[in-house]
Amino acid sequence: MFQSKIVVTLRKSILDPQGKAVEQGVHSLGYEKVNDVRIGKFIELNVQTDNKVEAERITKEVCEKLLANPIMEDFSFTVENHKAT
Amino acid sequence: MFQSKIVVTLRKSILDPQGKAVEQGVHSLGYEKVNDVRIGKFIELNVQTDNKVEAERITKEVCEKLLANPIMEDFSFTVENHKAT
Repeated sequence: MFQSKIVVTLRKSILDPQGKAVEQGVHSLGYEKVNDVRIGKFIELNVQTDNKVEAERITKEVCEKLLANPIMEDFSFTVENHKAT
Repeated sequence: MFQSKIVVTLRKSILDPQGKAVEQGVHSLGYEKVNDVRIGKFIELNVQTDNKVEAERITKEVCEKLLANPIMEDFSFTVENHKAT
C-alpha cells in the first residue's frame, strides 16, 4: 500500500482572501513580521497497490480530475510506502 | 526572510466527513483502490527575520494560537530560507 500526501495551492496570480483574513488575525495577535499568508488544501490518501508507479499515476489523475481546479490551483504530491496499521 | 510551510491535520481519532465525501467522489470516478482520504489545511507564510530560530518560534506560536485547534488537530511545519521576489 502507498500513502500519497497532496498539497493543492492557489496559483500565485490568484488573490487569496482567506489568507488575507488569516494574516490580519496573525497581526492582531502581535506577529507583525508575518506576511504573505496563503491557504491551501492538504490531502492524505492511501492507494491499495504494490506498484509505486501505479500509485503515482492514480494520485496524479485524482488530483487532476477531482482535487485541484486546474484554472486556479497547482498541486504537488509525494507517494510513500505505507504499512497498514 | 523565511518561508514556513505548515500542514494542519485532523487527529487520527477524529472522524473526517469531508475526507469521506471526497473518497466517495474518487470511487465514483472509478478509483476503487483509493481509501482513507483525509483532508487537512496547508498554510504558507513568510516571516520577516534573518533569524531562523525566531522564524520557527513565531511559526509554532501562530500554529498553536491561531491555525490549529489543539483539541482536534495536529500540525507540522518546515521553515526555509526564502528570497524575496
